[in-house]
Amino acid sequence: MSDYVLYYWSVPFRGQFVRAVLAFAGKTWTEGGDDAIAQLMGGAVEDMPVPFMGPPVLVDKKANVSLSQMSAIVLYLGETLHLLPAAPALRALAMKVVNDANDVLDEITLDGGREMWTEKRWHDFVPRLKKWMSIWEETGRRHGLHKTKGFLLGGEAPGIADVVTAVLWSTMTERFPKIEAILEEAAPLTASLVKRVAELPLLAELAAKAREDYGDAYCGGQIEASLRKVLKA
Amino acid sequence: MSDYVLYYWSVPFRGQFVRAVLAFAGKTWTEGGDDAIAQLMGGAVEDMPVPFMGPPVLVDKKANVSLSQMSAIVLYLGETLHLLPAAPALRALAMKVVNDANDVLDEITLDGGREMWTEKRWHDFVPRLKKWMSIWEETGRRHGLHKTKGFLLGGEAPGIADVVTAVLWSTMTERFPKIEAILEEAAPLTASLVKRVAELPLLAELAAKAREDYGDAYCGGQIEASLRKVLKA
Repeated sequence: MSDYVLYYWSVPFRGQFVRAVLAFAGKTWTEGGDDAIAQLMGGAVEDMPVPFMGPPVLVDKKANVSLSQMSAIVLYLGETLHLLPAAPALRALAMKVVNDANDVLDEITLDGGREMWTEKRWHDFVPRLKKWMSIWEETGRRHGLHKTKGFLLGGEAPGIADVVTAVLWSTMTERFPKIEAILEEAAPLTASLVKRVAELPLLAELAAKAREDYGDAYCGGQIEASLRKVLKA
Repeated sequence: MSDYVLYYWSVPFRGQFVRAVLAFAGKTWTEGGDDAIAQLMGGAVEDMPVPFMGPPVLVDKKANVSLSQMSAIVLYLGETLHLLPAAPALRALAMKVVNDANDVLDEITLDGGREMWTEKRWHDFVPRLKKWMSIWEETGRRHGLHKTKGFLLGGEAPGIADVVTAVLWSTMTERFPKIEAILEEAAPLTASLVKRVAELPLLAELAAKAREDYGDAYCGGQIEASLRKVLKA
């Protein structure tokens, strides 16, 4: 029996961060599934495990704790599974990286498909995507990533910031080779960190399972179709 | 001399959460100002106090710490100024509320003005706005807000979740009386909590200063103009 139930759509996207933190910590979980999510979202807030607008929602059954908001869930898992640094500044910086990753997902889907990708929109977005990548690169550089082949925020073992970084960019670049080429050019240290962390057995296994369970799917919907079109993927 | 420098545009909006947490903790800070923000954002990531895409950015000069991402800054201040509960579940729930508040700001500006408000868009959004409000209401109810006249997550003193809740809804309802009417109907316990917390002297003083410094401004730009138009504000 798993200790956790995760409610997230059957695509990787934002839920994959939570799955990856659980997998990285050697935890198992049950997926609530699309139907249950739709039912919770369509029902009364009184009946929700935690009052929420959209998934992911995580239920920690043993602790009797339910949470929504990806970065709050990741904070909770980071604290309870001991994957966050001890110093408040580094803890907050790790959560800053998590929130940056969340913003990149919003932008890559034009805020949940508020608009659709066109050639022109993508063309105009590429400099901003490169700037996001350079934000990761510079963060790593400030913590010695160019010297140590270590981790994003320094330290001797991968933590929340590394797992989230690896999942963000590896999930995206595996599905969109054009973005992989951009990452390798704009942020080579980050690209190499992403490879090293994504290849850790528990995370590689999770990625293989995502391909098995969700196929090529990334975020789903019309917005994914429009992204595939401009990226010829 | 202040210990902190806050870089945020000269409007309340997302930066007001950081200002409010600082004010609530009795701290002073210097505002970096619009020109400095524009210069940092237009410059190289190497020259930024922390690599960031958009403000708020907080510099804690004494601790030599710089952070971006509103919710990461609030986590840092919450930890270092002792405004977060001790239990990981309640800490994460407080940060869930902060992230919900951040999402509401995205939605009320149609994701930073990606589209403009029209009568029809606003009309279609009202049920979702009420749902957001009911998420606050149900959160408070689960922690006894209907019995205690206490705080959002229970407890005997206001914390991060209460300050952020008060700033989110009081800043919005002061400027848009139509939203105030919706809040009072959809989430009366929350509306009352917001009033009680916003009236605390340090927060009331901050709100008065915002009116003095920024006038009626909320988020600024064309999106604010379109919001004022549909809300006749």
